[in-house]
Amino acid sequence: MPPANLRRRRALADAAIALLAEEGAHGLTHRAVEARAGVPAGTATNYVRNREALLIAAAERVIELHLADMAAATAGDPADGTGPAPRRSTSAHDLAEILAASLWTAATDLRDRYLAIFELQLEARRRPALAAVLARLSATALADTTGLHDEMGTPVPETAIPLLITLYTGTLFNLVVLPAELLDRERVRALAEAMVRGVLAGGGV
Amino acid sequence: MPPANLRRRRALADAAIALLAEEGAHGLTHRAVEARAGVPAGTATNYVRNREALLIAAAERVIELHLADMAAATAGDPADGTGPAPRRSTSAHDLAEILAASLWTAATDLRDRYLAIFELQLEARRRPALAAVLARLSATALADTTGLHDEMGTPVPETAIPLLITLYTGTLFNLVVLPAELLDRERVRALAEAMVRGVLAGGGV
Repeated sequence: MPPANLRRRRALADAAIALLAEEGAHGLTHRAVEARAGVPAGTATNYVRNREALLIAAAERVIELHLADMAAATAGDPADGTGPAPRRSTSAHDLAEILAASLWTAATDLRDRYLAIFELQLEARRRPALAAVLARLSATALADTTGLHDEMGTPVPETAIPLLITLYTGTLFNLVVLPAELLDRERVRALAEAMVRGVLAGGGV
Repeated sequence: MPPANLRRRRALADAAIALLAEEGAHGLTHRAVEARAGVPAGTATNYVRNREALLIAAAERVIELHLADMAAATAGDPADGTGPAPRRSTSAHDLAEILAASLWTAATDLRDRYLAIFELQLEARRRPALAAVLARLSATALADTTGLHDEMGTPVPETAIPLLITLYTGTLFNLVVLPAELLDRERVRALAEAMVRGVLAGGGV
């Protein structure tokens, strides 16, 4: 796909994310996306055929951005790109720091992105095609997250990664629906610590 | 308020909850609520003035039902009602059992109720009046939950109750958006254990 097309497609998907966050799934129409992206009326249908495809494009873009950020934040490759990084080790304490920072950024700077995905998850209850895409994206995210934990050498066993993702995304839901002025770094830090503690030392409470 | 009015009001709020779960916040109109509750057109406005009041009535009903169920599930009063139960003690293990059972019921039999509250939390981002009601309800739920933990003698310190509520409701969001056939008792049990482990033994990871 030519770069100009790719840029346009991304601009439309980004506009869709902003609209989902502001208006909810109901507010997502081709007309609204075109207006938001500043492209001529009628343009969006060249890229996304119908409303469901618009919802799916937004979901795919959120996951693409999420995985790219996650990889960047935890990148192990040396800057010169000559080879893989040496295997690292990340303590539970450091993992809690990383998750706290990630939750904070997700709930503040990137709030729209995650509000959008939560809107889509609820909308998917009514749209099997969207649910199927979200399930596929979620499987990709699990594989990527598992790979990153392995690469970072965190103490989280592979079998506990799905639990950690559930606790993380669930906590993020609670954070993005809060009014921004109620977000508190100490509380986010305590939540990150609780989820790390929770998924370590399995085998009963 | 006469019982007949109270019953009618509750029937309308229950219809609103069902509609929120099925159609999302956008589907909630007086006409749809009347049809769903099987009452004559025009009836609902006698009880709830406008659309925002309808959203608020649904939110209040969800919290009322939630707190009633929680109190019933953990009731300490003896059946003969002659006095308060003796102070009990609930282990971390038993608390995890209770939370697992509660999550399971919430995500299956009571799924609509919790889908409705999550729809309302997202809608509240666009409606300050609804956000104010949800904040008040959430404060009530915190006080009630704290009281129940105290009454049950759980090992969760009072300061950790908000963390536990965040992990619980966030996990529940993840469960109710899953297709029902993907719900798994073992996984729910593991999540409940993780959240209990997470909020105990504070002070770093």
